[in-house]
Amino acid sequence: MNQMEAARKGKATPEMEFVSRTEAVPVEKIVEGVRAGRMVVPSSTLRELKRPCGIGEGLRAKVNANIGTSPDESDLTTELCKLRVAIQAGTDTVMDLSTGGNLREIRKAIVSECDVPLGSVPVYEIAVDSARSGKQIADVTGDEMLAAVELHAGDGIDFVTVHCGVTLSVMEMAKKARRVTDVVSRGGAILLEWMHANKKENPFYSRYDDLLDIARKYDLTLSLGDGMRPGSLADANDTAQFGELLVIGELVRRARSADVQVIVEGPGHVPIHLVEANVALEKTTCDGAPFYVLGPLVTDVAPGYDHIVGAIGGALAAAKGADFLCYVTPSEHLRLPSVEDVRVGVIASRIAGHAADVARGVPGAAEWDRSISEARRALDWKKELSMAIDPERAESLRASSPPRDPELCTMCSDFCAMKKSSPVFRNKS
Amino acid sequence: MNQMEAARKGKATPEMEFVSRTEAVPVEKIVEGVRAGRMVVPSSTLRELKRPCGIGEGLRAKVNANIGTSPDESDLTTELCKLRVAIQAGTDTVMDLSTGGNLREIRKAIVSECDVPLGSVPVYEIAVDSARSGKQIADVTGDEMLAAVELHAGDGIDFVTVHCGVTLSVMEMAKKARRVTDVVSRGGAILLEWMHANKKENPFYSRYDDLLDIARKYDLTLSLGDGMRPGSLADANDTAQFGELLVIGELVRRARSADVQVIVEGPGHVPIHLVEANVALEKTTCDGAPFYVLGPLVTDVAPGYDHIVGAIGGALAAAKGADFLCYVTPSEHLRLPSVEDVRVGVIASRIAGHAADVARGVPGAAEWDRSISEARRALDWKKELSMAIDPERAESLRASSPPRDPELCTMCSDFCAMKKSSPVFRNKS
Repeated sequence: MNQMEAARKGKATPEMEFVSRTEAVPVEKIVEGVRAGRMVVPSSTLRELKRPCGIGEGLRAKVNANIGTSPDESDLTTELCKLRVAIQAGTDTVMDLSTGGNLREIRKAIVSECDVPLGSVPVYEIAVDSARSGKQIADVTGDEMLAAVELHAGDGIDFVTVHCGVTLSVMEMAKKARRVTDVVSRGGAILLEWMHANKKENPFYSRYDDLLDIARKYDLTLSLGDGMRPGSLADANDTAQFGELLVIGELVRRARSADVQVIVEGPGHVPIHLVEANVALEKTTCDGAPFYVLGPLVTDVAPGYDHIVGAIGGALAAAKGADFLCYVTPSEHLRLPSVEDVRVGVIASRIAGHAADVARGVPGAAEWDRSISEARRALDWKKELSMAIDPERAESLRASSPPRDPELCTMCSDFCAMKKSSPVFRNKS
Repeated sequence: MNQMEAARKGKATPEMEFVSRTEAVPVEKIVEGVRAGRMVVPSSTLRELKRPCGIGEGLRAKVNANIGTSPDESDLTTELCKLRVAIQAGTDTVMDLSTGGNLREIRKAIVSECDVPLGSVPVYEIAVDSARSGKQIADVTGDEMLAAVELHAGDGIDFVTVHCGVTLSVMEMAKKARRVTDVVSRGGAILLEWMHANKKENPFYSRYDDLLDIARKYDLTLSLGDGMRPGSLADANDTAQFGELLVIGELVRRARSADVQVIVEGPGHVPIHLVEANVALEKTTCDGAPFYVLGPLVTDVAPGYDHIVGAIGGALAAAKGADFLCYVTPSEHLRLPSVEDVRVGVIASRIAGHAADVARGVPGAAEWDRSISEARRALDWKKELSMAIDPERAESLRASSPPRDPELCTMCSDFCAMKKSSPVFRNKS
């Protein structure tokens, strides 16, 4: 039975029970969240996930790591290494965005190793195939697009990004918006190219019911892509983005009626003062559907540090209700990320998500901070470092600069404020 | 003439004129800001700064980099290297927090090289001297404390942190607060130790008028230290911190009456949902005095990544009105920062400050984002990377993964959304 069908019958699936245990949230809440569409538990019927997760209201903010080849760099071994590093760093989900090499072979290799929910973007495969066969995107048929989705679903993918909201009318809005960076979504650009050439509606929109049939069959969660996500602060929260969001809101309701789990994707580049409105609009327009943001990036000026830029935006967005943070690596805008970028990207997003969890009062979140700080106060370095979000890095930084007194560190050394003030606070003089 | 005396007479100093030019803010606004105490222009009468800066309402958020030795690591050459790297990375001010080696020699070397405002914490020197001479902190006299401030001022320091608000009554409040991490301010801990042993009021409070005399003489800006800044989320915004802030508010008013420029220091560890209140309370309690925050750190769990944690908190705080961000490096809580940590720390804080500047509508801020994004859209990599906050890093990341097509990058390569969607938006098919 599919997750949503189970939820409608008031039944908890094994995946929901797993989520309930790991989040310390009663299973009835998970069942109700999935039923109402305010949570999803992405999980293909074709495989059993060792570590499923729930995404949505009242749950920990989740983190996704994008991996995958490009036409310029397509080494499967490297991508599998990124997969392992991302999982080891604590990502909740992974997406394979490969566009180079043998896509199906890569996907199958990743599916077989990935024990967390795995997503993909089937339209990339269409674009790669047509480029390789010398065809224009315009010549791809709607059937072929749907077949690509079913191919991915059949390979065991748990969730797919589908840019169903990029309609002809949204395209016209985008043209009138006179954006600085036009369109920065690859999937969005592919569908725009198709519509522009064919003067026809986006097949993922016009044949949305067929898409829902595929999704229901495999319990494939649909992640409604934001083809119009702003690629610069100047384009944030504009008519193109919100126009697409209104379409997506309607598609969310249709998915729910068809017992298909659905997530909504969001920006992108958004200045701090517009983040809250962006999240609020998604939540109202899409009836509380889980919101999956890429960043948001709160400035355009920091290529090389976009993991930090994304952590600022992600923390703020999640504190205001975003549920799912797509990581951004230091290499964003510059190159395909390295293995080390993947690790840093996951940690930066986890920091953002956790800081937001504390702000939202998610069960257990503030307790982690309290415990590590109690260990810090006790000068119990071993315990403190073992509780860090990345124990290995914390330990190695400390080890690189060994203090004379093993109770202290080389920053404050003899002038450690906590140690010095002990007589005042702890009656040990 | 001292900055505030000039401002009271409606006159602009050369430093104010410099600030007006670099911020594109009319000089009358700077004069009025300094007069009202809502801005400071830290600048010792003993030296001419090549790059002074204004800190406060309506100006760009500023960044400070802490450098300096510790008892465990005290190499002057390394600290001078940190100074150069911090300035090259774009810090607005520097603080020398040395507690190891020959403090005066180090300070003088830094003063002579530092062309931006330089701060220090004179009470550290008192603690170091008394430790070296085998004395107890308790045996230091109030005269000696004031003499240390005058020594620093006489060496050309532009601003000093003085923990004047750590009074006996604040100490009692702190004891009752039953904090997780007691006190994490080194200066605060030194004064608590002194008061606890002597059962007497903090000399920086009881002899505040004498301190103001020294400050006025050298035009030394006072940065009123937050000895009670929370060292863990659990201690944020508690009675100890706000109790001290109320004392500081009174001291701000006394400093202004004495024509002394004054900044207020703030936390520390504060969860996202309490940051705005923290900033608002400083602004009301201290009549709009510039607010200088250390972070804030929005989680305790990420030693090794506290530059990211601090960037999240700093961006949020500055967007809500904080004026001055003390950087946090990846080594915070673990070791004395390395030269590379200094660079990364400055950039992370500058990202936070700039993202907040955009949110607050600071003149020129959003234009930077627009310009770099226009270059990005034009696929003009040379121009784009040269405009990045750290051009060298952006260029080196791109160079490490050279794309086949020099117009693109190895992330999206042939599937570059901006290039692919050109026919739709730019009528080039």
